Amino acid sequence: MAVNLEPPRAQDLLPVAGLRLGTARAGIRKPNRRDLLIAALDEGTRVAGVFTRNRFRAAPVLVCEEHLAAGLPIRAIVVNTGVANAGTGEAGIASAKTVCAATAGALGVGTAQVLPLSTGVIMEPLPVERIERAIPECVADLAAGRWAEAAEAIMTTDTVPKAVSRRVVIDGRAIAVTGIAKGAGMIQPNMATMLAIVATDAAVGPDALQYLARRVANRSFNAITIDGDTSTNDTLLVVSTGRAGNPEIVGEGTAEFAKLSGAVVEVAQLLAQAIVRDGEGATKFITITVDEGASREECFRVAKAIAHSPLVKTAFFASDPNLGRILAAVGNAGIADLDPARVGLQLGDVVVVEGGSRAVSYTEAQGQRVMKPAEIAVRLTLGRGDETATVWTCDLSYDYVKINADYRS
Amino acid sequence: MAVNLEPPRAQDLLPVAGLRLGTARAGIRKPNRRDLLIAALDEGTRVAGVFTRNRFRAAPVLVCEEHLAAGLPIRAIVVNTGVANAGTGEAGIASAKTVCAATAGALGVGTAQVLPLSTGVIMEPLPVERIERAIPECVADLAAGRWAEAAEAIMTTDTVPKAVSRRVVIDGRAIAVTGIAKGAGMIQPNMATMLAIVATDAAVGPDALQYLARRVANRSFNAITIDGDTSTNDTLLVVSTGRAGNPEIVGEGTAEFAKLSGAVVEVAQLLAQAIVRDGEGATKFITITVDEGASREECFRVAKAIAHSPLVKTAFFASDPNLGRILAAVGNAGIADLDPARVGLQLGDVVVVEGGSRAVSYTEAQGQRVMKPAEIAVRLTLGRGDETATVWTCDLSYDYVKINADYRS
Repeated sequence: MAVNLEPPRAQDLLPVAGLRLGTARAGIRKPNRRDLLIAALDEGTRVAGVFTRNRFRAAPVLVCEEHLAAGLPIRAIVVNTGVANAGTGEAGIASAKTVCAATAGALGVGTAQVLPLSTGVIMEPLPVERIERAIPECVADLAAGRWAEAAEAIMTTDTVPKAVSRRVVIDGRAIAVTGIAKGAGMIQPNMATMLAIVATDAAVGPDALQYLARRVANRSFNAITIDGDTSTNDTLLVVSTGRAGNPEIVGEGTAEFAKLSGAVVEVAQLLAQAIVRDGEGATKFITITVDEGASREECFRVAKAIAHSPLVKTAFFASDPNLGRILAAVGNAGIADLDPARVGLQLGDVVVVEGGSRAVSYTEAQGQRVMKPAEIAVRLTLGRGDETATVWTCDLSYDYVKINADYRS
Repeated sequence: MAVNLEPPRAQDLLPVAGLRLGTARAGIRKPNRRDLLIAALDEGTRVAGVFTRNRFRAAPVLVCEEHLAAGLPIRAIVVNTGVANAGTGEAGIASAKTVCAATAGALGVGTAQVLPLSTGVIMEPLPVERIERAIPECVADLAAGRWAEAAEAIMTTDTVPKAVSRRVVIDGRAIAVTGIAKGAGMIQPNMATMLAIVATDAAVGPDALQYLARRVANRSFNAITIDGDTSTNDTLLVVSTGRAGNPEIVGEGTAEFAKLSGAVVEVAQLLAQAIVRDGEGATKFITITVDEGASREECFRVAKAIAHSPLVKTAFFASDPNLGRILAAVGNAGIADLDPARVGLQLGDVVVVEGGSRAVSYTEAQGQRVMKPAEIAVRLTLGRGDETATVWTCDLSYDYVKINADYRS
């Protein structure tokens, strides 16, 4: 059961001119569910991607990078759920390319103009024939307004599809930004979430688009964690179709870039937060802000150390203000010269720790009160500088264990 | 329910001449349980310690270091369970010293000759008065044969007390080595486990003893992990009473040192493994060996990455051969130049991965067979060198969540 997360309403999702979506039921792992998605991109579209840093990168990730590096205009994205096509060696790469070729054939474009994305079980072969058989159905389904179905077609253990839109006006033109993502488990994105596509009809130059993709990843998907396991398949694609008619955005320092970036980051943050709200077994949505750090990187490291501690996560699940566990996690974040006596901790409006030990004003009753709600804000101060970072995470419940003990069956 | 772990039998635990143990029920956190232990050490005893690397080090850890650094002969160790006296600032240090002073007074030694150890809940004040009241009972109970009661008196969520003895003959003298430990949760010792005391009546010089303590920690407690949370209180004390009558062991390269080290490491490894077998909610005992690494450190890092992955741990709990999760964990171990195509994986006698992808010979039925037993050996080869490391861990079950959601109540 997701934490304060409703499925998106189709009427709230803005079409992006120049991009059409089609889905099909290919029976990749389970029968009778949407499990294949094709996004067809009009001529003039640009795509930038950021990918997982896991050393076991899945075949589709490797093929995406190869096709992006080839430099031909990208004209389609083909996404399957059910099988991740990771840990599959050379055969896996051949399978991913076969799927690209079949998609390219159906659309009349080149194989290297197709980007493949996969999510699902690792170390199982991709059922290429079933996917090939379903591609014509996918292509026949192509239409501009299919974001809700697209979000559904990429789910694994997600319980709620994730899609967000924002509109922004740039140079007098109404710009649409719409994104979809999937998450649920094996989620500590390192460069991007498991799978996310954010598209806009704004015209953006290639360098500015790549810069935008990296910035978006760092401010959204890279700042969430469910279980600390970085997937083999993490992929974020940022798509710009250029159909809005705005003058092309080329400089990263311009007001236009800032405006677009604001909208794209907002869409991506809402998607990233939706992944956490729908984290496997999640009952709480936790925002961890680490402040007064010497660098953003160390703030991030401390926030992640708190977010990854199974003891902290189970305490949140139990609504138990066993908050010394947070201090223990901070002490393990690997900051060698951390001075515990300068550390402070606040939960919601309650001051828990001052000067490294329990605040005189703190009471167990206060702790119980702030641990109860489904949304909890943790604020830690390091007393080392001016930098800050925020990480979003969820608790660790019986259901996380249940879901992951049952995932394949 | 611990994995293949029986409580120690009192008759199997060797007394160590020069060391007496006494326990009491001080009511520190729960009534009517042994929760206070004093070990009284005869003159001539030497003690070496290694302590947690968590930056939030508990007050007793700081006081132990201060008293060891003062250089007076250590004459007693006082251990309480229930409250960890961590995250308690200056008041916590004063509390630990008060307990030392009270123990010293009852034994007629100096305060700086007493080492305090605490385990339990973090960020709560130590109930000093209750401990002081129980110290006379503890002292009245002092006797050589009390190892079983001592092991019981330091438990927290442990379900089985942990104590091991070995006898070894050095220079014609029968040497006793006996140790106790406690574990259960917040267990990824970094220098030593939560609490462990290993004592021998062998005579050992001070430098050799400190070297021995470090070596023992690295080969036992530092090689286990339950949940990746390094405690604020981890302490290993190695005690040498010198009563066996052997010529003092001074050189680390001598045959006598090797013989003693072998026995002490064996005791410590069995204690460390007992901690894993009795890990919170554990249903499986998993030995992870990483081989063919470029350094022992990177082997260790990869083994820990596997051992910490919640997805790997839940798959073990479910006996589900979802073994791609192990590859994903390996890919996240932070070895930038790892070549996935050289990685191999074996479970028990089953070859799962060869050359970075699923072995041709591997079948799902084989995977199901090796995932079933309560003891599983994982062997990963990196294809990068000759180094190796082994880590012991357990699975992640519903009960881990249950225990940690309930721990304080």
